[in-house]
Amino acid sequence: MNPPPLLNQPLSGNAMPRFGGVATMMRLPTATTATMAAGLDAAFVGVPLDIGTSHRPGTRFGPRAIRAESALIRPYNLATGAAPFDALQVADLGDVPINTYSLEKSVEIISGFYRDLLAQPGRSGRLVRPLTLGGDHTIALPILRAMAEHHGPVALIHVDAHADVNEDMFGERIAHGTPFRRAVEEGLLRSDKVWQIGLRGSGYAADDFDWPRRQGFTLVPAHEVWWTSLAPLMAQIRQAIGPETPCYLSFDIDGIDPAYAGGTGTPEIGGLTVPQALEIIRGCRGLNLVGGDLVEVSPPYDPTGNTALLGANLLYEMLCVLPGVPLR
Amino acid sequence: MNPPPLLNQPLSGNAMPRFGGVATMMRLPTATTATMAAGLDAAFVGVPLDIGTSHRPGTRFGPRAIRAESALIRPYNLATGAAPFDALQVADLGDVPINTYSLEKSVEIISGFYRDLLAQPGRSGRLVRPLTLGGDHTIALPILRAMAEHHGPVALIHVDAHADVNEDMFGERIAHGTPFRRAVEEGLLRSDKVWQIGLRGSGYAADDFDWPRRQGFTLVPAHEVWWTSLAPLMAQIRQAIGPETPCYLSFDIDGIDPAYAGGTGTPEIGGLTVPQALEIIRGCRGLNLVGGDLVEVSPPYDPTGNTALLGANLLYEMLCVLPGVPLR
Amino acid sequence: MNPPPLLNQPLSGNAMPRFGGVATMMRLPTATTATMAAGLDAAFVGVPLDIGTSHRPGTRFGPRAIRAESALIRPYNLATGAAPFDALQVADLGDVPINTYSLEKSVEIISGFYRDLLAQPGRSGRLVRPLTLGGDHTIALPILRAMAEHHGPVALIHVDAHADVNEDMFGERIAHGTPFRRAVEEGLLRSDKVWQIGLRGSGYAADDFDWPRRQGFTLVPAHEVWWTSLAPLMAQIRQAIGPETPCYLSFDIDGIDPAYAGGTGTPEIGGLTVPQALEIIRGCRGLNLVGGDLVEVSPPYDPTGNTALLGANLLYEMLCVLPGVPLR
Amino acid sequence: MNPPPLLNQPLSGNAMPRFGGVATMMRLPTATTATMAAGLDAAFVGVPLDIGTSHRPGTRFGPRAIRAESALIRPYNLATGAAPFDALQVADLGDVPINTYSLEKSVEIISGFYRDLLAQPGRSGRLVRPLTLGGDHTIALPILRAMAEHHGPVALIHVDAHADVNEDMFGERIAHGTPFRRAVEEGLLRSDKVWQIGLRGSGYAADDFDWPRRQGFTLVPAHEVWWTSLAPLMAQIRQAIGPETPCYLSFDIDGIDPAYAGGTGTPEIGGLTVPQALEIIRGCRGLNLVGGDLVEVSPPYDPTGNTALLGANLLYEMLCVLPGVPLR
Amino acid sequence: MNPPPLLNQPLSGNAMPRFGGVATMMRLPTATTATMAAGLDAAFVGVPLDIGTSHRPGTRFGPRAIRAESALIRPYNLATGAAPFDALQVADLGDVPINTYSLEKSVEIISGFYRDLLAQPGRSGRLVRPLTLGGDHTIALPILRAMAEHHGPVALIHVDAHADVNEDMFGERIAHGTPFRRAVEEGLLRSDKVWQIGLRGSGYAADDFDWPRRQGFTLVPAHEVWWTSLAPLMAQIRQAIGPETPCYLSFDIDGIDPAYAGGTGTPEIGGLTVPQALEIIRGCRGLNLVGGDLVEVSPPYDPTGNTALLGANLLYEMLCVLPGVPLR
Amino acid sequence: MNPPPLLNQPLSGNAMPRFGGVATMMRLPTATTATMAAGLDAAFVGVPLDIGTSHRPGTRFGPRAIRAESALIRPYNLATGAAPFDALQVADLGDVPINTYSLEKSVEIISGFYRDLLAQPGRSGRLVRPLTLGGDHTIALPILRAMAEHHGPVALIHVDAHADVNEDMFGERIAHGTPFRRAVEEGLLRSDKVWQIGLRGSGYAADDFDWPRRQGFTLVPAHEVWWTSLAPLMAQIRQAIGPETPCYLSFDIDGIDPAYAGGTGTPEIGGLTVPQALEIIRGCRGLNLVGGDLVEVSPPYDPTGNTALLGANLLYEMLCVLPGVPLR
Repeated sequence: MNPPPLLNQPLSGNAMPRFGGVATMMRLPTATTATMAAGLDAAFVGVPLDIGTSHRPGTRFGPRAIRAESALIRPYNLATGAAPFDALQVADLGDVPINTYSLEKSVEIISGFYRDLLAQPGRSGRLVRPLTLGGDHTIALPILRAMAEHHGPVALIHVDAHADVNEDMFGERIAHGTPFRRAVEEGLLRSDKVWQIGLRGSGYAADDFDWPRRQGFTLVPAHEVWWTSLAPLMAQIRQAIGPETPCYLSFDIDGIDPAYAGGTGTPEIGGLTVPQALEIIRGCRGLNLVGGDLVEVSPPYDPTGNTALLGANLLYEMLCVLPGVPLR
Repeated sequence: MNPPPLLNQPLSGNAMPRFGGVATMMRLPTATTATMAAGLDAAFVGVPLDIGTSHRPGTRFGPRAIRAESALIRPYNLATGAAPFDALQVADLGDVPINTYSLEKSVEIISGFYRDLLAQPGRSGRLVRPLTLGGDHTIALPILRAMAEHHGPVALIHVDAHADVNEDMFGERIAHGTPFRRAVEEGLLRSDKVWQIGLRGSGYAADDFDWPRRQGFTLVPAHEVWWTSLAPLMAQIRQAIGPETPCYLSFDIDGIDPAYAGGTGTPEIGGLTVPQALEIIRGCRGLNLVGGDLVEVSPPYDPTGNTALLGANLLYEMLCVLPGVPLR
Repeated sequence: MNPPPLLNQPLSGNAMPRFGGVATMMRLPTATTATMAAGLDAAFVGVPLDIGTSHRPGTRFGPRAIRAESALIRPYNLATGAAPFDALQVADLGDVPINTYSLEKSVEIISGFYRDLLAQPGRSGRLVRPLTLGGDHTIALPILRAMAEHHGPVALIHVDAHADVNEDMFGERIAHGTPFRRAVEEGLLRSDKVWQIGLRGSGYAADDFDWPRRQGFTLVPAHEVWWTSLAPLMAQIRQAIGPETPCYLSFDIDGIDPAYAGGTGTPEIGGLTVPQALEIIRGCRGLNLVGGDLVEVSPPYDPTGNTALLGANLLYEMLCVLPGVPLR
Repeated sequence: MNPPPLLNQPLSGNAMPRFGGVATMMRLPTATTATMAAGLDAAFVGVPLDIGTSHRPGTRFGPRAIRAESALIRPYNLATGAAPFDALQVADLGDVPINTYSLEKSVEIISGFYRDLLAQPGRSGRLVRPLTLGGDHTIALPILRAMAEHHGPVALIHVDAHADVNEDMFGERIAHGTPFRRAVEEGLLRSDKVWQIGLRGSGYAADDFDWPRRQGFTLVPAHEVWWTSLAPLMAQIRQAIGPETPCYLSFDIDGIDPAYAGGTGTPEIGGLTVPQALEIIRGCRGLNLVGGDLVEVSPPYDPTGNTALLGANLLYEMLCVLPGVPLR
Repeated sequence: MNPPPLLNQPLSGNAMPRFGGVATMMRLPTATTATMAAGLDAAFVGVPLDIGTSHRPGTRFGPRAIRAESALIRPYNLATGAAPFDALQVADLGDVPINTYSLEKSVEIISGFYRDLLAQPGRSGRLVRPLTLGGDHTIALPILRAMAEHHGPVALIHVDAHADVNEDMFGERIAHGTPFRRAVEEGLLRSDKVWQIGLRGSGYAADDFDWPRRQGFTLVPAHEVWWTSLAPLMAQIRQAIGPETPCYLSFDIDGIDPAYAGGTGTPEIGGLTVPQALEIIRGCRGLNLVGGDLVEVSPPYDPTGNTALLGANLLYEMLCVLPGVPLR
Repeated sequence: MNPPPLLNQPLSGNAMPRFGGVATMMRLPTATTATMAAGLDAAFVGVPLDIGTSHRPGTRFGPRAIRAESALIRPYNLATGAAPFDALQVADLGDVPINTYSLEKSVEIISGFYRDLLAQPGRSGRLVRPLTLGGDHTIALPILRAMAEHHGPVALIHVDAHADVNEDMFGERIAHGTPFRRAVEEGLLRSDKVWQIGLRGSGYAADDFDWPRRQGFTLVPAHEVWWTSLAPLMAQIRQAIGPETPCYLSFDIDGIDPAYAGGTGTPEIGGLTVPQALEIIRGCRGLNLVGGDLVEVSPPYDPTGNTALLGANLLYEMLCVLPGVPLR
């Protein structure tokens, strides 16, 4: 079975060695402005921001590293049978030109970029589904703002070591530890349809977890799912959200244990395994996933590139569960 | 709930960014001699020794790296609810000034330091509970000598890839592979209350494991607990030791698999997972833990700092299970 | 129990520190040509080839790094009781002098080397059992050619993320992704007695897995054995192959998850754990293992040396399950 | 000759091994607020800022790394005979608590810290001379603001690959490429007494160099001094500035060639050598140096720590040329 | 002064942060086949080959790393005043799709690519001048073959630690140590107009240097120019070659000392300095440079990226001395 | 000209790729005890000691790394014409089995090893000339003890950042900062024929340099020879020592600037260049060099291996200036 001739295909390893060529996401054709999203089903977008981070920097190089490592990924998903490029038109839209000297202005630039992107007519009139290469987790807020403008409040599956619901950090309301508090306050989320998976570590008080619970979020601390398949949890989540509700997947790579994903800024021990991570994403098949992000890959702390490779694969797995992807 | 006003608190990330400031353990106030332990409940102490190691050196930089990475840890334990700084007076006592040219003299210096430390009147008249940042495992011997002087022979929970009960190494009786043989010979341990968890690898003969069994130790080789929660084991251990017996926890980071803890000097494949490690330490709650150590972090083999971060977290978890720590 | 006096023994850590001395495999005596294999039961051989790789290079330094890290391994297997040097004569035969400018010629040189090696009278008249330090996976083909010449078609246990059964790569029929397709075509394998364990990742089509199934191979994708002990699988395999059939074990380190084995050229997420890897190899005890290889360790991507250490240990575990190895 | 008994001395390597102890600058006593500067002649201050950088981040860890590597430095300067601790009271004042989410607020916090610091009565009534561990070069602006408040406009010796006189960067007027433009505009500098040494690289137009020349700056591009001792240049500078004029030394480590100082964010090839750097600083003896900084050390790009070590030594050399330092 | 509106310009750091966006050479527009060279004055081309190397591999990632680091370079050369983008039409043509399993076929593919490239009508009817991002030095042969086809035999300035004139390597006539022997044999060079600069190290016999001298080459061993500006040498070379003779510049980064360029495969101590390297390239202004290459950057041995940055800058400096580049 | 048939030759890169084979020094035949020195002219010996170091450890891996990197060196010295293997019988004698737990015992073992080595009848009845791969500088003392026993007090050329003449370190008289003080006290040196070249850095007092001067040593601080060829100095030294006096060359790699030799334990800025280092060693031709060492290469701080490569080359250069080496 061959894909329709007009769909973009990843450049094959038989046409150019995988280490060769300018590095785009999955070796797809690239474009560099949001307005080039017209006609797409899904788009990879980079957001090279790291000034929202509280500890180790470096996620500004996340999109570049994820693109470079994505060169290893071929089009067909051997485990699930998904063949995204058989049916979806996908491109790499390059990076959002953030202002690296101002978090506030960067947040505006990002929401503007996604607003423009979603304003384009996607393929067959559907909204484009953006999959974002972070960047630190601050970027989830402006993306959710644009999402909610077009989709209304969204359900959220949030994988992370941290709840990211701080009232503020060093007095600032915008930072990589606050996006989901702001999102609740701004009405961007359907709080009864929010799951936070992989939480752990230390905090200032129990309220770090109590506040989201009070909003209606379901919390799944990492230590409660050690030794456990997450497939049953995902079945519950699918049932609770349903196939129509617009749903966003925000995946902080530090949700996964540092053994697998050491190249990140605020690692926490005792995290999820990669099989659990794959169960989460693969368990999203059947949801109306309107977008997703993979954030907090920090290349300066990833000497082998393997954390970026993991990030690239998780983004590919997100693509594989978008609505309309056939199985072969 | 706020801690009593006179207790030391880790410097908050809202007062100084986590990457800023002189790096002390958990950003606590520091002091630099054993005699400053007066009035404390617990004390972090560094022992920057690596001349007892048989292979890769570098643990001399262990305390410095553990302190640096500990900056990420906040005061409240989200998984267990422990709030150690609500009730305990804790400080970082700096490093023991070992003699890096003489293992023998260093061992004397270390036991002297801990002897002095335990001779101070701790808070409310109780002995200070030292938590040690190693350093190679040689240091367990002089620490146990001081411990036994003040507490009598102690029960021991020993996590390690290696039994460290060699008769000698290259003809030497003091080295990082011999401390627990010496401890038995010197009567520092209650040998019927000793557990060695995580053992594995290769040796010269079965006697590597037979000798400790003959002393009454309980051995838990790693491959016997693959795939298994260690919570039940810890319940047995707690019952066997009881809540009064002075108990020491000696944790060699190489007990954990190199996937999680690659920055160490004599790594062995097939080790414990971090969830198992956390179960061990958290399972010590209820014991009369009189001290503990985390040894064998070797920063030159830890390019991301993540092994040191793991070590810092394990020391924090030890603090969280000391007698008197409340849960919130 | 002491080994017979004429058997080679690894240089003891009490005779020379483990970091000292010229690095041979397990600190065994070395020889540098295949014709020196006479009188041996088993031989370690390096094949420093990496020009067959499709992505990251570096396996040319694999043998050197594996030898260096093997210095940590002592003769007796504490988990299984195996004492290979009590009964087997083993040496390090050095490296095959491949031609690094020509894959085609290198393949000829390698098969010639193994042909010569197997032509030597081994100890007690039995064929020498070579254990190979790779090198990229291309080398399995010339080794299997030599094996089949002397043993006839062999059973195969193949651990890998990739099936390595491509028809060709960039139009070439010899590369690290094709050896087992060629081996089937050339009649080197008993295809009904082939297991491929750990497969995963992405491909061009389902045929990547279908072709081997059509040959009679049994495929064990990684995601089907997450959370699972592989001991039962190995029991099945032992029964299916039987104790007499010549069996070869080809172990690509990328079969194991990058968390444990990040120093490799084409890592794939979601792989086997090291306990599973050990179960596979230890589960080969009882088979007529006529040789084995450990391939795809790439030192430039292994900053701690821990992937090479894992490779060294897996080769040691292979030695421990060769026919004739006693348990103590 | 011994120093007066009340002067702080670096902790000796004979009292604590150099790798031991909590890492302060040159192992000096530490204090953590600007108000503790009272009674000092000179103070080391860290400014862990990196959000002003245009390319690679990481200078937020500069102060920590410089402190750690400074442990190697002993009190007496063997090349020049300077013995700073014989006559000056020096301490490490810790880090300025910058707001890592806002460049604008950080600049305010920094100038406030230095303003407070200079408002303290220094030893013998003289103003404290701060030596700053950066941090990116943005920090020079707020430091110069505080300097000019207390000293009036200052002469400036500025070592750098870049002139740092951009009108703006990405539309922002405050960033690591603009401090000296702002300083001129705000009247903080005596523009006829400004030298910029080591300039090179690429730019948008010749104006990058023409603007400073129009202000009266003297520019010394790196390529004009290849192969050349800078001692004669420094003699000219000393004569031009004179011994009374308050003079500030701002040293960007990227003024030096990446061969010596690779751990920085915007390296430029063809730079100064370390002997030239030492000639510049040693050539400041005789000037009224009222402060200095060493900026742009980025530890994530400094795997050996040697760039931080260079930075630590250059700060020590600055201390050695402060007014009042005796020669032995 | 603004460039003509139709000329490609590097993406400004004020339009996209330097760490953002898909990494092309100097952030220029990219195209991916040789036939897209039409209308260009100069073209950057990557050749990701490393199978011709005799020791450390990794140059296959050279083009990708050079592109990534080139993001720091702005359009105007501050030292020389060159403004290449004011007058030349330049693009990044992507990589030559070499066959990584066959050196022989790769050499054919490369010469075919350059033959096609030179067959395109360049801007104003002149031949395009390719500047190549290597790759190992083997690639110079196929490039010179295409060059000679279009230009006839060329003069050559060859910077390198090694003469690369071996008769063969391991019996092979094509490898990274033989290209200039082959080029002489095939009549691709004007041997009386060949300079080899930076030679040093060890060899099998004096003939390593005698053979090129017998061909008429001028050899400049590194140790003969220690401590020396190369500007006078370049004046001699310019005079000897003259302004019309087609001249090719082949620059092996290992000509430069490993202190500056450690990320390479066969480093030799005692090499050229970067100022000397810049003098060589800048000294080519006035020659009819018809192409150039920068080879042997090996990213796995370049942990900071600084060798790739050096390579990027040297390629930029080559661009700056092409005929027709104005000075501002 | 071919060497006599019985002389050992480095394994050619045409017989085995340079990255292949068990790594011995320069790929020479190896032997593992001092008594195998019989019949040799010169011998490479490793001393894997690092417990004498005051700061960063790791030199225990120095011999292994130097051997690995020495694979790049070919037999003939292109710069000087020296062809050592044409006339000298040379082998790699492996490592001295030091006791890594006791500095004192190690010193005894080392002097015993060299005493035995020199007691062997060398080739043609001359004493073997050992060239040592360190190891930290402590090892110079036991080597000099053995040297003086056989040769009487020796002249000394000592290249180093540090004079290594401390009275003691942390109260110990044997450590890497004391060997030459002990050597003077024990009468091992002809103090009027001692040169210390490259000295610099910081100390406790001027006496660090005054003491050696009082013994008659000639000191050449690094900053006095910046910008200068050392050929004239070496001419003076040759004249002062004369061609008969037994002379020892002790070369601490930290004598060279960290830009070239960053992989060492106590780096000091502002050091010698590699051309100067080569001038020193090449300037020893004509002296009666009875042995030499290259110490303080620390592989954990040498991520590229380039410092070890430099060390290997300097040892090769020492071999090239031994008496009896012909020029071709």
